[in-house]
Amino acid sequence: MPPAWREDGEGPQTLTGLLPEGFRDRLPPQAEAAAALLRTLLDTVAARGYARVQPPLVEFETGLSGWLMKPASTALLRATDPASGLGLALRPDITGQIARIAATRLADAPRPLRLAYGGPVLRAKGGQLNPAREFLQAGAELIGSDSLAAATEILTMAVAALAAAGVTDISVDLTLPELVATLAADRWPVPCPLADLHAALDAKDAGALPALGATAYAPLLAAAGPAAQALARLRALDLPVAPQLDALESLAAALPGTHVTIDPTERHGFEYHSWLGFSLFGRGPEGAVRGEIGRGGSYAVRHSNGTSEAAVGFSLYVDALVDAGLGITRPRRLFLPHGTPSTTADTLRAQGWATVAALSPTDTPQGCSHVWNGVEAAAL
Amino acid sequence: MPPAWREDGEGPQTLTGLLPEGFRDRLPPQAEAAAALLRTLLDTVAARGYARVQPPLVEFETGLSGWLMKPASTALLRATDPASGLGLALRPDITGQIARIAATRLADAPRPLRLAYGGPVLRAKGGQLNPAREFLQAGAELIGSDSLAAATEILTMAVAALAAAGVTDISVDLTLPELVATLAADRWPVPCPLADLHAALDAKDAGALPALGATAYAPLLAAAGPAAQALARLRALDLPVAPQLDALESLAAALPGTHVTIDPTERHGFEYHSWLGFSLFGRGPEGAVRGEIGRGGSYAVRHSNGTSEAAVGFSLYVDALVDAGLGITRPRRLFLPHGTPSTTADTLRAQGWATVAALSPTDTPQGCSHVWNGVEAAAL
Repeated sequence: MPPAWREDGEGPQTLTGLLPEGFRDRLPPQAEAAAALLRTLLDTVAARGYARVQPPLVEFETGLSGWLMKPASTALLRATDPASGLGLALRPDITGQIARIAATRLADAPRPLRLAYGGPVLRAKGGQLNPAREFLQAGAELIGSDSLAAATEILTMAVAALAAAGVTDISVDLTLPELVATLAADRWPVPCPLADLHAALDAKDAGALPALGATAYAPLLAAAGPAAQALARLRALDLPVAPQLDALESLAAALPGTHVTIDPTERHGFEYHSWLGFSLFGRGPEGAVRGEIGRGGSYAVRHSNGTSEAAVGFSLYVDALVDAGLGITRPRRLFLPHGTPSTTADTLRAQGWATVAALSPTDTPQGCSHVWNGVEAAAL
Repeated sequence: MPPAWREDGEGPQTLTGLLPEGFRDRLPPQAEAAAALLRTLLDTVAARGYARVQPPLVEFETGLSGWLMKPASTALLRATDPASGLGLALRPDITGQIARIAATRLADAPRPLRLAYGGPVLRAKGGQLNPAREFLQAGAELIGSDSLAAATEILTMAVAALAAAGVTDISVDLTLPELVATLAADRWPVPCPLADLHAALDAKDAGALPALGATAYAPLLAAAGPAAQALARLRALDLPVAPQLDALESLAAALPGTHVTIDPTERHGFEYHSWLGFSLFGRGPEGAVRGEIGRGGSYAVRHSNGTSEAAVGFSLYVDALVDAGLGITRPRRLFLPHGTPSTTADTLRAQGWATVAALSPTDTPQGCSHVWNGVEAAAL
């Protein structure tokens, strides 16, 4: 049989199989783990009434901006649309797309609107710690409220989803993304640009505060830590955010068995969030999941009529779970020797077996855990 | 609470929510249907021992070529890699990626190699009948054999997957993609370019054959039809492809209850296939699935050392199933009035309910099928 590829007159290519930096093949069992983890996370979310939506991978570059926050222009992987000549971009996250859907096609749907999603996102550049440019994300967004009740539902659901996925030692780091701006606008004004203050606090650089005229903020850095201790220290500062502190206390109380910390000034990665932000951490069978497993918080969805709508949600990073060894199962596959009737195969599959049928008398049960001996499945 | 978007000094944008032509949002219940159908198709495949792989969405443009057939350069949606400056492209199909994986990372894995996949593919241009440019595909590839046994496993599995997804009146159209070239090389040489003969036969244009000096091929067009009739007519022509005709007869016999036709000269869309190609059709609750539901056949995987390896596989088009109304379920959601204890919610979810918890006393059970009255789930 002749080979089926055709060169279209361009001559043979060098076939290296190299992938661009930041992209990879998932092979078994990791590819199955990723799919299984995505199922588990989204099943947990569906069980709490969140309905799946599936936005496209590609949008107009301008369409990916503005619903929440304009993505940094360097973050987008761009394509040119041969149909329109307009600039397209691959989505760098899905939350912004959900906000778009909530503000347009589902603008008239009853609130609160509970939506779930799962799929890949792409970025133009990998990070220093993680060169990946394609990520599998799962998430949920509750649109129409960012009340304590809404935040509690979202945060406990995120933790429940991770627990269902097998994550242990789950910890949650809570932050108040608007705290610093609120204080700078009123209680503790600073002579420096707000961005410089945010940068120093995100870097936990107390030494930089005096030069910024922002020594007042040093106790906020020192307050970070386990929830009970952090709340006590923050309350001692008599800040004009008592309701938010009460809310953090309530959230921590809603997560028994979860280690909760508070980092009140952390804003990096929470640029579009409002009163609440949170990061999730935990362990898999191969040790601590590297970096964040997910994050979320409250935000406002912008509508085209100029109004905004409160929301709260989270995104979970499936790749981080896979890389920590979660979701891996040893497949139980039953080898059916050559000549096994197809009706027998049907029966065994109906009993829950994954079958591998020999195509010829010389096929061997490689990759199988059991072999059918005509009477029963014998373990190999 | 202030709105959370930031304009980065570029002024307000017009927020239209418009998507590029050929891209769309899937909303509930269609988004859930797409996810459920993908699960069902891949569960059917997994039950026959096919292991999931997950290649990236993006590759070097050159890397997407050559493992099977070079994609038409106009078919690829391209991006430029800011990291390398090299040309990237979004995958137009997944079969070529599976061939790459089989020829490189899994070159030394035992054969036959059974791999499954599911995910989106993207194209630069929509078609005349279907403007979509993003498609959700699921498929399976058996690498290491294109024997009748291998083809039978693949084709019966494709039909079983569609049946599990709820497709009725499944029909299969079989073709012999190499037949015309085989005949032209030996039995019935033609003075015209082979591509012209293929074009005339793909167009079923018997009237064009005399001008091509190819009247001998007219009986092949006339032979197309239901399998038994087509095989009888083809055998009467005494062609040098008796083993292939026996194989088609055997394949048809392996599909009881499936309407099998044979279109022996069809090659459009089977450009890289070898002895066998097939297309799948059927009906959903809202009528016939528009166009093909999937296709597959035998082919050769090219290895970098110049050898090739026989394979057979299929791809199924999840969007076609969703658009025909398949996979839609009416969600059973149980509204939990404000104040329902979270332990009650846990218990009800453990019983299989999807719960929707009121966030405030004014929340209503919109979107729910049942409401918890403190004792039981009452239908609404």
